[in-house]
Amino acid sequence: MKSPVRICMIGAGRVGKNHSNFISRHVPAGKIVTLVDPVTDILHATGEEFGIDNRFASLEEALDKSDFDAVVITTPTFTHKQLVLSAAQYKKHVFLEKPMALNLEECDQMIEATRSQGVLLQLGFMRRFDPEFSSAAKRIQDGEIGKPMMIKSLTHGPGLPPAWARDLNTSNGMLAEVNSHDWDTLRWLMDANYERVYTEVANFKGAERNVDTPNFYDNVLVNVKFESGALGMISGICPCDYGYDSRVEVYGDKGIMVIGELKGQAVTICTNRDHGLVTPIYRTWPERFSWGYIYELEHFVSSIQNDTKPIVGGEDGRWAVAGVLAGTRSFLEQRPVSLSEVLS
Amino acid sequence: MKSPVRICMIGAGRVGKNHSNFISRHVPAGKIVTLVDPVTDILHATGEEFGIDNRFASLEEALDKSDFDAVVITTPTFTHKQLVLSAAQYKKHVFLEKPMALNLEECDQMIEATRSQGVLLQLGFMRRFDPEFSSAAKRIQDGEIGKPMMIKSLTHGPGLPPAWARDLNTSNGMLAEVNSHDWDTLRWLMDANYERVYTEVANFKGAERNVDTPNFYDNVLVNVKFESGALGMISGICPCDYGYDSRVEVYGDKGIMVIGELKGQAVTICTNRDHGLVTPIYRTWPERFSWGYIYELEHFVSSIQNDTKPIVGGEDGRWAVAGVLAGTRSFLEQRPVSLSEVLS
Amino acid sequence: MKSPVRICMIGAGRVGKNHSNFISRHVPAGKIVTLVDPVTDILHATGEEFGIDNRFASLEEALDKSDFDAVVITTPTFTHKQLVLSAAQYKKHVFLEKPMALNLEECDQMIEATRSQGVLLQLGFMRRFDPEFSSAAKRIQDGEIGKPMMIKSLTHGPGLPPAWARDLNTSNGMLAEVNSHDWDTLRWLMDANYERVYTEVANFKGAERNVDTPNFYDNVLVNVKFESGALGMISGICPCDYGYDSRVEVYGDKGIMVIGELKGQAVTICTNRDHGLVTPIYRTWPERFSWGYIYELEHFVSSIQNDTKPIVGGEDGRWAVAGVLAGTRSFLEQRPVSLSEVLS
Amino acid sequence: MKSPVRICMIGAGRVGKNHSNFISRHVPAGKIVTLVDPVTDILHATGEEFGIDNRFASLEEALDKSDFDAVVITTPTFTHKQLVLSAAQYKKHVFLEKPMALNLEECDQMIEATRSQGVLLQLGFMRRFDPEFSSAAKRIQDGEIGKPMMIKSLTHGPGLPPAWARDLNTSNGMLAEVNSHDWDTLRWLMDANYERVYTEVANFKGAERNVDTPNFYDNVLVNVKFESGALGMISGICPCDYGYDSRVEVYGDKGIMVIGELKGQAVTICTNRDHGLVTPIYRTWPERFSWGYIYELEHFVSSIQNDTKPIVGGEDGRWAVAGVLAGTRSFLEQRPVSLSEVLS
Repeated sequence: MKSPVRICMIGAGRVGKNHSNFISRHVPAGKIVTLVDPVTDILHATGEEFGIDNRFASLEEALDKSDFDAVVITTPTFTHKQLVLSAAQYKKHVFLEKPMALNLEECDQMIEATRSQGVLLQLGFMRRFDPEFSSAAKRIQDGEIGKPMMIKSLTHGPGLPPAWARDLNTSNGMLAEVNSHDWDTLRWLMDANYERVYTEVANFKGAERNVDTPNFYDNVLVNVKFESGALGMISGICPCDYGYDSRVEVYGDKGIMVIGELKGQAVTICTNRDHGLVTPIYRTWPERFSWGYIYELEHFVSSIQNDTKPIVGGEDGRWAVAGVLAGTRSFLEQRPVSLSEVLS
Repeated sequence: MKSPVRICMIGAGRVGKNHSNFISRHVPAGKIVTLVDPVTDILHATGEEFGIDNRFASLEEALDKSDFDAVVITTPTFTHKQLVLSAAQYKKHVFLEKPMALNLEECDQMIEATRSQGVLLQLGFMRRFDPEFSSAAKRIQDGEIGKPMMIKSLTHGPGLPPAWARDLNTSNGMLAEVNSHDWDTLRWLMDANYERVYTEVANFKGAERNVDTPNFYDNVLVNVKFESGALGMISGICPCDYGYDSRVEVYGDKGIMVIGELKGQAVTICTNRDHGLVTPIYRTWPERFSWGYIYELEHFVSSIQNDTKPIVGGEDGRWAVAGVLAGTRSFLEQRPVSLSEVLS
Repeated sequence: MKSPVRICMIGAGRVGKNHSNFISRHVPAGKIVTLVDPVTDILHATGEEFGIDNRFASLEEALDKSDFDAVVITTPTFTHKQLVLSAAQYKKHVFLEKPMALNLEECDQMIEATRSQGVLLQLGFMRRFDPEFSSAAKRIQDGEIGKPMMIKSLTHGPGLPPAWARDLNTSNGMLAEVNSHDWDTLRWLMDANYERVYTEVANFKGAERNVDTPNFYDNVLVNVKFESGALGMISGICPCDYGYDSRVEVYGDKGIMVIGELKGQAVTICTNRDHGLVTPIYRTWPERFSWGYIYELEHFVSSIQNDTKPIVGGEDGRWAVAGVLAGTRSFLEQRPVSLSEVLS
Repeated sequence: MKSPVRICMIGAGRVGKNHSNFISRHVPAGKIVTLVDPVTDILHATGEEFGIDNRFASLEEALDKSDFDAVVITTPTFTHKQLVLSAAQYKKHVFLEKPMALNLEECDQMIEATRSQGVLLQLGFMRRFDPEFSSAAKRIQDGEIGKPMMIKSLTHGPGLPPAWARDLNTSNGMLAEVNSHDWDTLRWLMDANYERVYTEVANFKGAERNVDTPNFYDNVLVNVKFESGALGMISGICPCDYGYDSRVEVYGDKGIMVIGELKGQAVTICTNRDHGLVTPIYRTWPERFSWGYIYELEHFVSSIQNDTKPIVGGEDGRWAVAGVLAGTRSFLEQRPVSLSEVLS
């Protein structure tokens, strides 16, 4: 048995804790040896929780004072580029959360840095590893529903994103922070790039909560035309309150495929015939995608151990960013936007 | 177009109103011309509701004073024999609600009376006409799941049955009043007669409600051995409060078939992610079996119009009574009971 | 009991037969006395099937030679205006299939003609009468999911539409012929008018079948902005081959509502564990919306008998046409189109 | 972090490989250091697959030549007693697969041996750790459906059991080998012991396959009366061919609870509207109960590390054996059998 890959977890907050939990509990081939977070309280609380003794305020300090093979980056989008560049410089393999970056230039720099340093770059699109999504993808590739004609992908998340994530100065908003997964899912399942996008947005829940971020939206519908001629739709609602909802439908010229469902646990009760049957809904993304997280992290460490290329990387992250940029420009300018406008 | 069959509805209560509603609203080939009920208030209320002008306290009076082709009998079990005999004597076709009778002698008398008078006798086993059950039956007959090995059939009804229906002196209790449908379903779908039955009963909800009827039970599980060697299970709960529940599973040597579901309308909401998804349940038997009632009544009038034999008749009603008698003896004597003991 | 409403069925083809079937079999309050169709074979075949003796090649002839209270119009869209105007002139109540017309001028003429002649005009949006859709609408109005923020409505139909229905000279194509129901559903469930629409289309199945109609499309995705600020999506695929698919999701600021499902009958089998569970899908619109058709036709005749206004009329039909016109202009001109452009 | 518990896996066949897989891949707190199997080929193949270097033909040899903290016993039922006694004697903690033993005397000896040596004894009832079953159990205990009145539990497995498992001389047959889980589920979810059981069996698939084991059955239905007055039903079919099916329904005096479903992955397709929707079914027990296995093995090693008593132990295994013995006697003697007859 190979020795475990030594990991530096960057970010001790919500996503950092999620990944630390899955690695330490269910991915023996990886071992978190170092934790980085600039917020001292969170750094130590998460460090205690997962028994990680090496704790630092910055990646620079961690690189200087501890030894590891790879980093897992779970910090806000605007920090990604610098962290990846530093990690690559020190020959650390990189697992990077979505969205990859704020713009394509940053994507290019990260792709180039990891390539030139010979380290792996895997993007945190865990749906690629979810048993349902990955089996669906394989079945589409095998031709079960014929040539894909149309796809609809939704991600609706329960809570209001943090301030940085909804400000178009520090993030590309919900289309990026929540719907990056859908952008990736579209390209992956349709095996086609986007050609043109049109976006409508609305603000209902933010208005209720007195969110005053300029251009804030909490509902979004994107209409996508693919280079293959196929059509796509992305829908986002955040906060949606009702649960964590991630479902896809694909229509091929031979049939329909439905991926995922609202229902969480298969435990149904009825105690009042006027109220009806009650079944749990998926409440959170770790609940919905537990196997996706376990398998993507397993895949990362096993790619390092076996010196193979991860199945989802910088190019995929870059395309998702391109979609986000076109989609955002579309609603700001109230017109369809060609990908060629943002890619050039 | 043939002229509508003129019907005398006997019983103006719950079942009588149900059948009057379906006939007058959705079965143009039948026309209720006469209504019979000994309870004056109910007689007139139901008569008004469905615009039936000829109203009588007894079948005898109705036979004497009005003209019709057929009777639909919806009164308590202990009244069945006399009503069928009277109707047959006057050459009226008979649609008879389940359970057919209190014992096999009554069944034999009704079968003989209708046969000798040349009138039709159809039993109210509406599941035979439900689109799901009837399609399932056809598919089993067509061999889709192979040779039937095991069947499980349940009927759980929401409310406490009336006093006469739970007293073993005036009824055969829940096994008859509620689970007659399951007894018929077992024979029909398995295409086999019962050979031996064993029954366990319990009393929970009755005890809560201070029901003091001797031998009262509100939960029943029957274990059935068929002559074909196959196994069967019937479960009854009444009152179950949670809804009207009627589902069947059949296992053949080639596979499983599931018939029916708890869910009523396909309208699902979630407004609280801690509570979960909420979907209507079937609340009542008219809701669950609307098409079953419409089609069984259509079948009755069209059998009369076309002089054909109904697909479900006295022999089927008699077998259900035989199962009930064996099942009841089993729990009273705490032993398996062979059908030969009650059939002889 | 009131005497049945005498109906002249105009059109003896697919839709005419569907409505004739539901009326004659399950709506006793209506009676089809006259049938009109210019195609002699179809006229007589359908007339025989439903026992309709008065048969004519044109409405004019029918008006001249037979007596009735109302017409049910099931002929192609381009015939609607003239038929409605003739019927109204002769004081016949009008049940009109969707889409209402080719343009808003025709809608206005029909609305004015029926209004001025004092006859009823009901549009064939049967979803308004489907138990699931109508219960969902009531629950939304009752505030169960809060203020509606987003809606997605799809109609995917199995077969290739006839030539007239896909030619933009004689029809407004799939957006009108198939998705009229979605246009109406959007306004109805969201209780808001469309403000702006953007449409993408694709052609996959038509291309396979060598359809050479100019501007033909068989896949369509419409992005709708409502006057209320809410968002909407309509998807159409025809022919989709896989079944008849009509489902809606509505998201309010308090929660999600899912209306309808793919599954037809609740009969599931598994005979091969590598293949999986198999459940019937809705195959056709009469199967999916049987109660919708029965109830809309019941509503029409009862509105006539009781002299009340149908719940869905000319104004609703006109709005659906307006949506179609804006949606069509959008994909032809590849830009978002405001309703104000087509309404003025 | 505590150091991993060192495990000796006893049995390198189907179950041994399943447990080895889950421990080595997803339970870092345990480490398989030794493998035991008398069949040399299987011993080495499984040893290679999971990188276990210490391999022995017998537990005695393993105890003599390697060092470990605990054993996981996955060998046939008739070997259990001697293995547990040996392990206990050497102070090794014991994880024991179901069924616990062939009779109650063996159970008593194992319970006494582990107790007196101060080692843990956990039974392999993984349903207790399945997220759905365990959440259901908690909700029943919390009173969500009121006082339990009736339970139905089924386990239908795909393939024919091996010869030793269907011979009543070396095993208690399907009721033990397959339905042990149901016996445990009944007591657990109903919080009540069995009082009386009645069993019917059938032989269809065995007959097709020319199985000539005396008293062989492949279909079984058990009717259970609990000491609490409640009713229960266990159904077993093996081989059922159609999948791995494990579902439970519980009815309380406040409502119904349905646990589990037939459907495996939430990926549904339809490519033929006459065939219908197709969804994967659970095919195997490792698929259905992956989290149950992971959590039960985590629980075992964490009970050792923290010196706490496992939540499911010898007493639970013994009750399941008692149920099996009563159930078997019932069908052999064709009468209801009281638990008092086998417990005395």
